[in-house]
Amino acid sequence: RIALPVFASDMLSSVTYATQEILVFLSLGGLAYLYLTPWLAGAVILLLLVVVASYRQLVRAYPTGGGDYEVASKNIGQPAGLTVASALLVDYVLTVAVSVSAGVDNLISAVPSLDSSRVLLAVLAVLLLTAVNLRGLRESGTAFAIPTYAFISIVLLLILWGLVKIVAGDPPVAESAHYTIDPEKTHIAGFALVFFVLRAFSSGCTALTGVEAIANGVPAFRKPKIANARKTLLAMAVLSMAMFGGITALAMKAKVHYVDPADSCDLGGFDCTTQVQRTVIAQVGKAVFGQSVFFYLLIAAAALILVLAANTAFNGFPLLGSVLAQDRFLPRQLHTRGDRLVFSNGILVLAGFAILLIVAFDASVTRLIQLYIVGVFTSFTLGQTGMVRHWNRELTTEQDSTARSHIRRSRVINFIGAVSTGTVLVIVLITKFLAGAYIVCIAMPVIYALMRAINKHYESVAAELEPDDGYESMLPSRTHAIVLVSRIHKPTLRALNYARAARPSTLEAVTVGVDAEETAHLQSEWDRRGLPVPLKVLDSPFREVTAPIVRYVRAIRRSSPRDVVAVYIPEYVVGHWWEQLLHNQSALRLKTRLLFTQGVMVISVPWQLKSSEELEARVVQAHKERVKAAIASGIIPPPPGKDDGGVAATVPAKDPR
Amino acid sequence: RIALPVFASDMLSSVTYATQEILVFLSLGGLAYLYLTPWLAGAVILLLLVVVASYRQLVRAYPTGGGDYEVASKNIGQPAGLTVASALLVDYVLTVAVSVSAGVDNLISAVPSLDSSRVLLAVLAVLLLTAVNLRGLRESGTAFAIPTYAFISIVLLLILWGLVKIVAGDPPVAESAHYTIDPEKTHIAGFALVFFVLRAFSSGCTALTGVEAIANGVPAFRKPKIANARKTLLAMAVLSMAMFGGITALAMKAKVHYVDPADSCDLGGFDCTTQVQRTVIAQVGKAVFGQSVFFYLLIAAAALILVLAANTAFNGFPLLGSVLAQDRFLPRQLHTRGDRLVFSNGILVLAGFAILLIVAFDASVTRLIQLYIVGVFTSFTLGQTGMVRHWNRELTTEQDSTARSHIRRSRVINFIGAVSTGTVLVIVLITKFLAGAYIVCIAMPVIYALMRAINKHYESVAAELEPDDGYESMLPSRTHAIVLVSRIHKPTLRALNYARAARPSTLEAVTVGVDAEETAHLQSEWDRRGLPVPLKVLDSPFREVTAPIVRYVRAIRRSSPRDVVAVYIPEYVVGHWWEQLLHNQSALRLKTRLLFTQGVMVISVPWQLKSSEELEARVVQAHKERVKAAIASGIIPPPPGKDDGGVAATVPAKDPR
Ligand SMILES: [K+]
Ligand SMILES: [K+]
Ligand SMILES: [K+]
Ligand SMILES: [K+]
Ligand SMILES: [K+]
Ligand SMILES: [K+]
Repeated sequence: RIALPVFASDMLSSVTYATQEILVFLSLGGLAYLYLTPWLAGAVILLLLVVVASYRQLVRAYPTGGGDYEVASKNIGQPAGLTVASALLVDYVLTVAVSVSAGVDNLISAVPSLDSSRVLLAVLAVLLLTAVNLRGLRESGTAFAIPTYAFISIVLLLILWGLVKIVAGDPPVAESAHYTIDPEKTHIAGFALVFFVLRAFSSGCTALTGVEAIANGVPAFRKPKIANARKTLLAMAVLSMAMFGGITALAMKAKVHYVDPADSCDLGGFDCTTQVQRTVIAQVGKAVFGQSVFFYLLIAAAALILVLAANTAFNGFPLLGSVLAQDRFLPRQLHTRGDRLVFSNGILVLAGFAILLIVAFDASVTRLIQLYIVGVFTSFTLGQTGMVRHWNRELTTEQDSTARSHIRRSRVINFIGAVSTGTVLVIVLITKFLAGAYIVCIAMPVIYALMRAINKHYESVAAELEPDDGYESMLPSRTHAIVLVSRIHKPTLRALNYARAARPSTLEAVTVGVDAEETAHLQSEWDRRGLPVPLKVLDSPFREVTAPIVRYVRAIRRSSPRDVVAVYIPEYVVGHWWEQLLHNQSALRLKTRLLFTQGVMVISVPWQLKSSEELEARVVQAHKERVKAAIASGIIPPPPGKDDGGVAATVPAKDPR
Repeated sequence: RIALPVFASDMLSSVTYATQEILVFLSLGGLAYLYLTPWLAGAVILLLLVVVASYRQLVRAYPTGGGDYEVASKNIGQPAGLTVASALLVDYVLTVAVSVSAGVDNLISAVPSLDSSRVLLAVLAVLLLTAVNLRGLRESGTAFAIPTYAFISIVLLLILWGLVKIVAGDPPVAESAHYTIDPEKTHIAGFALVFFVLRAFSSGCTALTGVEAIANGVPAFRKPKIANARKTLLAMAVLSMAMFGGITALAMKAKVHYVDPADSCDLGGFDCTTQVQRTVIAQVGKAVFGQSVFFYLLIAAAALILVLAANTAFNGFPLLGSVLAQDRFLPRQLHTRGDRLVFSNGILVLAGFAILLIVAFDASVTRLIQLYIVGVFTSFTLGQTGMVRHWNRELTTEQDSTARSHIRRSRVINFIGAVSTGTVLVIVLITKFLAGAYIVCIAMPVIYALMRAINKHYESVAAELEPDDGYESMLPSRTHAIVLVSRIHKPTLRALNYARAARPSTLEAVTVGVDAEETAHLQSEWDRRGLPVPLKVLDSPFREVTAPIVRYVRAIRRSSPRDVVAVYIPEYVVGHWWEQLLHNQSALRLKTRLLFTQGVMVISVPWQLKSSEELEARVVQAHKERVKAAIASGIIPPPPGKDDGGVAATVPAKDPR
C-alpha cells in the first residue's frame, strides 16, 4: 500500500474547486465560450502530467525533504532559494485561506441558510484548526486516511454513476442547466480573446496546487522512501486527473452554469436574493445522486478533505520555518524541533495571515485563488529550473553512458517542466496581476528582504564572535564573589553557601541601604547569626537598588581589570505566573543590567517554593506526553535506548585544569 | 513663604465645581429651592473648617506622610488601613476623571464649538498627562506655583470686582439669569425634602476633596515641616472658604441658573440644540468681567489648575502604591523608588481607569462627583476615627497636665471631625448610592480583597523561607561545573575561561547532539584547538535541547546529592529588542527550566555585542537625567557626596572562608 494520506489531501482537494474556477471565468463571456471547458481542462491535465513527471525526478535527486527550496538554493543560488521560500510561505497561508473558504462553500451547498455567515464560518474554521494544532494534534495516519479514501471513493463513485446514467439514457441535469448568463462583453476577439482564455486557464491551474507539498514530505514515507514517494506521486497524478477530468466532463454534460458568486444576480432564471449557487461539485453531485445520502456524503467528504488540506499547512508552515531557521534566514529558535512555543508562534502567524486574507477577500475562493497560483507556480518554476541545472552538473561528472542517457532524459523532463510552469507563471502574472496577484508580488519581496536582513545580522554577529587564536588562554586572574542580600532567609543563605562552596578569591555579601531601619535590622541579624561573610552596605541616596550595585561592580572591575566579578543573586522559583509578578522583579532587572557590564558573571541561585514543584511536575508530564504523541504520529522516531534519552550520569574527572 | 503649590492644586481646584454641583441638585426642584444655596454653602464651609482643623492635628501626630492610611492602620487596625488605602486608590482615579472633565467643561465655556468633542478632549487630556508623566516630568516647584497663584489671584480679583460692582450699584447679571427651570417634582415635602437637600449638600461637599492630599505630602514641605504643613493647611482652608464662599455669593447675586448638562433642554429660554451651558464659574466670570481678557484669564487659570490637580494624582498614585508595597499589600517591586518601569505601570493603571470612567460617564462632572466623594469621605472618617484612638492612647501614658489638656483638645477636634465626616459619608451613601456610589462600593472591596490576598501570599512565602537554625552551615561538598556549548566562539570561550578561573571540583563542557553533522564539526574543532576541558555530547533522540541538559544535571545531582551543579551559559547581550528575538531564546528557556531543579546554580556569562554598548550608554545617560530631574523637582534630595553615590571601590579581604 502507498502512504497517500498526509500529503495527499492538499493535492487531491484541489479537484473540488478547479473545474469551478474554469467555469467562472469562461462564463464571463456568457454561455458562448463554455465549449472551451474541455480544452482548458485537457491543458491543465497535460500540465499536471508534466509537473508530476518533473517532481518524480526531483524527489529522486533530493530525497531529504528540502523540496523546491533546497533544489533552487543548491543549483541556482541563495536568491532563488529565498524566492522559493517566500513563495512557499505565502503558499501555506493561501492553502489555508482557499481550502477553508472552499470547504465553507461546500457546507453552504448542503445547508444554504448558512450563506449569511460565510466569512464568520471560515474564520471559525481557521480558529478551530489553530486551537487543535496549538494543543498539539495527536493525528495518526489513520485519522487522515479515512476521509482521504472516503473522498476518493465517493468522487470515483460519482463519476462512475454519472457514466452509468448517461449510458442508461438518463443523463444528469444540473439545477442550473436552464440558467442563462449575460456575458460581460458581448463580443470578444483578438488579443482580448487570448487574454480571456488564458485567464480561465490560469484559474484552472489551481488543480496543480499541492503537488509541491509531496517533495517536502519524502522523509515521512515508508522505506524505500524514494520509490514510495515516486509511486505516490504517480498514483495521485492519475487519481487527480481522473477525478478532475470526470468532474469536468459531468459538469459539461449536466450543463452546470456557474458564475462568480459576487455576480450571481446576473444569472438569468436564478433568484440571487433568496437562493445560493451550489459549488460545481455539489451541483454535479446533486444531478447524479439526487438529493440522496450519497449527495450529502460527497459534500461531507469534500468539506472534510479541504479542512485536512488546510491542516497540512499548519504542519508545513512551522516545518519550513525550521528549515529556514537552520539556514539562518529566520530566528534561530524556530529551528529547535519539539519546541512547542516556537511552533505555536508559527501556527499563530499562519492563522493570523489566513484570517486576514479571508476577511479581506470575503472568503471568496475565486478571488483568493488568483493569489494562490502565483506562489505555487513561482515555486514550480524555480524548482524545475534548479533541476535542469542539477542534471547539467551531473553530466559534467558522470561517465557511464547508460547513466548519462538517464540523466539526459530526466533533464528533458525537467526542462519541459520548467518551461511550461514558467510560461504558466507569466500567464498568471499577466492575467491576474490587477485581480490580486500584485499582493503576492508585494508580499514575497517583503518576506525575502526580511529573511535577508535576519541572515545578514546573524552573519555579522558570527564574524564579531569569531575567536582570535589564543583567546582560550586568557584566563581571569581571580574571582571576586559578591552575594546580593536584601533579607536573611533560606534563599539568601543558600546563595551564601553556594558561593562559599565555590571558594572564590574574595567573597562578601552586599546589600543596598534603601531604608535605614531595614538595613540596621539586617546588619544586627547578620551579626547575631554570626554569618562568616562580611556584609557591605551600599549607599543609595536616590533609593535605587540597581544603580548602586552596578556602580559597585564596575568599581571592583576598575581596580582589578583582569579579574572577574561573580554576582550571586538569590531567586525564588514560583509555580504561578502571578507569583512571578510578586517576586524576582528587581532581581530580573538587576540581572539584565549587570549583563551589560564587562567582566561580570551573574549567578542565579534558585530557591524552589513549594508551588513550583507542582508546575515542574506538570511541565515534565506535558513533555512526556508530547514526546509520546510525536512518536505515535511518526513525527519523531522512537528513542534508541532507555527512557532517559540514553544519558548516563557520569560525573566527569576531577579538576580538569 | 508657604509651600503651597504642589498639593494645593488638588484642593483649590475643587472650588471650580463645588458651587455648581449644589446648584445642579437644587435646580432639580426648579427655581423654588435655590434660596437654600447659601445655607448649604455655609454648611460645606463649616465642614471644611472642621476637616482642616482635624487634619492639622493629624499632620502634627503623623508627619511621615502616611496620611489617613497610616493613622487608620496604626490606631484602628489593618482592615481599616486597607479600607483607607482602597478608598485613596479610587480617590486618585476619580481626581483625574473629575478634574479633567471639569477642565474640559471650562474650556468649552470659552470655546463652545468644542462641546461635541467633550469626551474625546477629556481622554486626550488624560493621555497627554500620561505621556508627560511617563516621559518623567521635570516639574519644578515654579511650574506649579505660577498657575496656582494665578488661579488664586484671578478668583480673588473676580470676587473683589464683583463686590465693587455690587457696591457701585451695577450688580453682575448672569447670562442664565432669565432662564426658567421646570422642576422635576412640583412639590417636595417631608422625607423627600430632607433627601433632596442632603443630596445637594453631598455634592457640595466635593469642595473638600483634596484636603486629604496634604496629609500625604508633609515630607515634601520645607523645614520645619510640621509647622509649615499646618500653616499651609490653614492658609488653604482660608483661601478655599473665601473663594468658594465668594463664588457662591456672586452666583446667587448674578442669578446663575445651571442644570445638569444632560437635562439642559429643560431650561426655559435656553436653546439646548445650539447653545452650551457655561460652567458656573465661567458664568460668574462673564457676569463680572464681561467677555474681557479677564474672563479668558479666569477660564484659562481654572482649566490649568484642574489639569494640575489631575497631575498630582499621577504623582500620588504610584507613591501610595510604593507605601502599600512596602507593607506588602502590593507587589514588592512597586516599592522601589526611582524605578521608572514600576512608576510607569502605576501611571498606566491610573490613566486606564480614569479613561474608563470618563468614557463610561460621558465626562460628566456631576455624575463622576457622586463616585468621587465616597472615597474621600471614607478616608476622612477612618483617618479621624484613628486620630481619636490615637489621642486616647496618648492619654494613657501622658502625665503632664498641660500636655493632657492639649491632647484632650485635639481629641475633641478629631472627634468632631470623625462624627461629622462620618455623618456626611452616610448621607453620601444614602443619597448617591444608586446614582453611581455603588460602583465605588464594589470597587473598594475588590481592591481590598486583592491587597489582602497579596499580603497573605507574601506572609506564607516568608514563613516558608524562614531559615532553620544551623542552615547557614549546610555547605555543599563540591561544585560540579558544566559549560554549555553549541559552537566555539568568543562567548563560549569566555564562559569556559570564567569557569576554569573559578576552579570547580569538576569541569566539563556539554553540548546537545541535535544535528550529527554539527556535533561532529564541533568535536573536531574542539580537538583542533586543544581546549583543556573535556567535551561531553548529550544524545537528543527527539532533537530537543532543554530536556537532555536538565536530565543530565539531575543525574549528576542524583549521584552526589550533597554537591552543587554550576551550569555556565554563554549569553549574548544585544542592543535592540529585535536582536533579543534573534538570540538567547533557547538560553532563556533553558535557564528557566534549570532553576526548577534542586541543587543547581545557573551562571550567565555575558558577551556584550557591539550593539549593546550603545544601549548601555543610553540607559546610563537616561538614568543620570532622571536623577537630575528628580533632584531639581525636589522629589529626592541631592546626593550627600560624590557623583558615584558614595560608593568606593574597596575590594574585600581575601578568602573570607
Ligand atoms: K490536484
Ligand atoms: K491545494
Ligand atoms: K499548497
Ligand atoms: K476645596
Ligand atoms: K479635588
Ligand atoms: K483628591
